[in-house]
This record gives sequence, structure tokens and C-alpha cells, in this order.
Amino acid sequence: MPLQLYELCGKDPQRVFSPFCWRSRMALAQKGLEFESVPWRFTETQRLAFAGHDKVPVLVDGDRVVPDSWAIAQYLDEAYPAAPSLLHGRPSAYRFIAAWNDSVVQPGIGRLIVSDIPPLLDEAALGYFVASREKRYGMPLAQVTADREARLPAFRAALQPLRLTLAAQPFLGGEAPDYADLIVFGSFMWARCVSRLALLEADDAVHAWRERMLDLHGGLARRAPC
Amino acid sequence: MPLQLYELCGKDPQRVFSPFCWRSRMALAQKGLEFESVPWRFTETQRLAFAGHDKVPVLVDGDRVVPDSWAIAQYLDEAYPAAPSLLHGRPSAYRFIAAWNDSVVQPGIGRLIVSDIPPLLDEAALGYFVASREKRYGMPLAQVTADREARLPAFRAALQPLRLTLAAQPFLGGEAPDYADLIVFGSFMWARCVSRLALLEADDAVHAWRERMLDLHGGLARRAPC
Repeated sequence: MPLQLYELCGKDPQRVFSPFCWRSRMALAQKGLEFESVPWRFTETQRLAFAGHDKVPVLVDGDRVVPDSWAIAQYLDEAYPAAPSLLHGRPSAYRFIAAWNDSVVQPGIGRLIVSDIPPLLDEAALGYFVASREKRYGMPLAQVTADREARLPAFRAALQPLRLTLAAQPFLGGEAPDYADLIVFGSFMWARCVSRLALLEADDAVHAWRERMLDLHGGLARRAPC
Repeated sequence: MPLQLYELCGKDPQRVFSPFCWRSRMALAQKGLEFESVPWRFTETQRLAFAGHDKVPVLVDGDRVVPDSWAIAQYLDEAYPAAPSLLHGRPSAYRFIAAWNDSVVQPGIGRLIVSDIPPLLDEAALGYFVASREKRYGMPLAQVTADREARLPAFRAALQPLRLTLAAQPFLGGEAPDYADLIVFGSFMWARCVSRLALLEADDAVHAWRERMLDLHGGLARRAPC
């Protein structure tokens, strides 16, 4: 049986858009592992009871059930050591870029695209999503993104650490991508799969890196519905 | 002959305050290497002609002359592989945190403390420093820092990626410090050695980390004149 990856989608089971699911999807590809995508929607927590977890991604590899993208990356390196390494034996060295991504890039993208998500959701997920996100932001979602064009320059400026890194090497991992790249790329795939907003300017080194990431593994990410 | 490290100082040759010199000083300590500090002042570029470089730090290890803190870290790992590793064989993995530090932490600290530096400098260095920094900031240095108390909360907020990382592990390198810690700590030592401004609140996880760093190697950094 191939590996199974439970992934967040909306009405369209092909349109996988969780940034954390994208990390795991790309991690499986980097390991050269075939997998079956199991569509999962917000509120379907019962369907994950077998994993003792209430969020995706969840990886099933034979008898092994691994919830959480961070644990999945570590599991894949342990179970498939011959394939290109994700964390190079030092998961602790990837905590900082994950923390930066999760406190700068991901919330920054959220405030630019969150109002584009509701139209993609089925009715049950829609109610959950809008209520929980309006509570988080303290306002209607249309209001969160109302001035998004004006906020794009500040978002792009906050990516300067990526830009400086990519001036020295083609990937955050160095000459080849590793889990650092997948963490940040996952956030950009979230945006790509739900929104038409152009986050990056075409002459930005971050744009060029994102293009390289979209090309990996035969264009796996580029081909995804968006 | 012990190793020599050319380091930036002001009137007092003991008060070493360059963030890049602090990276190399701590790197030597992490390797357990004794070294002689050679005081160097702004404008003394001729004294570095032997290194083909015009800035400190410069490391001299017998016949080897290594300028630039980044090159010094790589050199130390190559020349002293048995000692605790700085870059764990993957310098490329440290580019991002260096880029983040150099584009967020270090300029952030600069705008808070730059006006505290001139009183520490001798006359020749003073003229160079004030002219070059006023050109960089486009205003008198006293004006750069005039509202610094009001800007402290924003500076502290920008350290959130450190805070999240340190919630998961005691050092940026994991259970033990590595070059990631030294990069960021160097910026904090710059501030400590020139300014009385309290950058961090006492209950901040970043403050606790800085205390751990100050304690390393018998309190090497804590004992430094400040």
C-alpha cells in the first residue's frame, strides 16, 4: 500500500492549500516517495481520531501513523535515510527559520489573502472557518484584506532575510533545497492555491527562488490546482 | 605563538565592541583556543594591509591569515575539527539567521544605540565614525536615537522568532550553542559594550538566553568591559 497523506482541501479535493500540508507533500516528493492524497476538510476531526490528532497533515505509512508536519519531516529522515535529507540530522537547526516563517511570513500572507479562502469551502467548513478567523482577526475577513495592495510593500520588505540568503546561494538549504526551503515555500503555496494576489514582484530574488521551487520534482507544485 | 585576533576597540583597548569581532571571539572560545586580542581602531586600515582586508576581525593563526568573521568560523571548523563544531559542516544552513540578524537585529540595535558610541572613540576614529554614520542615517546621531525608548517595544516584537525558537530549545543551535547563537549574541554584545540602554525585559526568553550566553566559557562575555 502506498503512503497516505491526509491533506486539507475545500470543495475541490485536488486543491490542497494548507501550508503545513504543502511542507509534508514536498517532503515526500524530496524523498522520492509515492503517496495517496486523502482529502480532509475543516471540521472533519472525527476522521482523524485514529491518529489521536485533530489537524492535518497526518501521514500513514503502513502501521505507522504520524501527525504534524514537523514530526513527519523527522520521521521521513529516520525511515528513509538514503533519500536526500530534509533536516540533515539536526532538526534543532531548523527551528529558527520555522519560527520566523510562522511569525512573519505566514501571518503576513494571512492578512493579505484570508478573504480569498471562504469561496473555496463547502458549507460546513465555511461556517467554522469564517467564525474562527473573524475571531482571530477581530473583524470581518473582507475588512482584514481591504487595504492589502497598500500593505504589499511592507510584506515584501519583511522578506529581506530571504533575499540576502538567496544572494549567496540558490536555496535556503544551500546548493539544494532542504526542509528550510519547504517551510517557507509551504506558506507561498498556501497563497498560490487560494488567491490571485501577486505577492512578489517579478524581479525579486524571492520570486526567482519560488520559481525554482515550483519546478522541483517535475513541477509538482506548479501543476497543483490554483 | 598563540592565535591573534584583531578586534575593534575605542580609546580603551579592552572594550571590544564590534558585533563581528564578538562572533569570532566567542567562536575561538567555543573551540577552546587561547588567543591574543590585538586592538584595532577605525581608520587604521594600513595596519590590516598584511591581510589584504580593511576591516576587523582578522585572525592570525601561525602562517594563516583569515579576515572576515564568516571565513574565520569556517576556518576554525576546518582547522580544529575535534572541538565543538560551529557550523556542523553546513555553513549554508547558517546564512539565513545571519541574514535575519544583519537585516533586523543589528540595524534595529544600531538605531537604538549609535549615539552612545562616539564618546568611546579617540579623535581620529571619532571623525570617521560620526561622518560615516550620519551619512548612513541621514541625520545627526543624537537625532537617530532621540525617540529610542518609544521604539523599544517594536524592536522587542521583532525578536519574536528568537522567542519562539527558545521556547523549544535552550540555544538557537539546540541543546548547545553553535554559530547561530554567536551571530545573534554578537549584536547584543555590541549593545552591551557601548550602551546602558536595556534592550530586553527581564522576563523575556531572549533575556534568559542572553544570560546563558554571557555565562559561557567561564563568563567570558560577562566579564568584558561594558
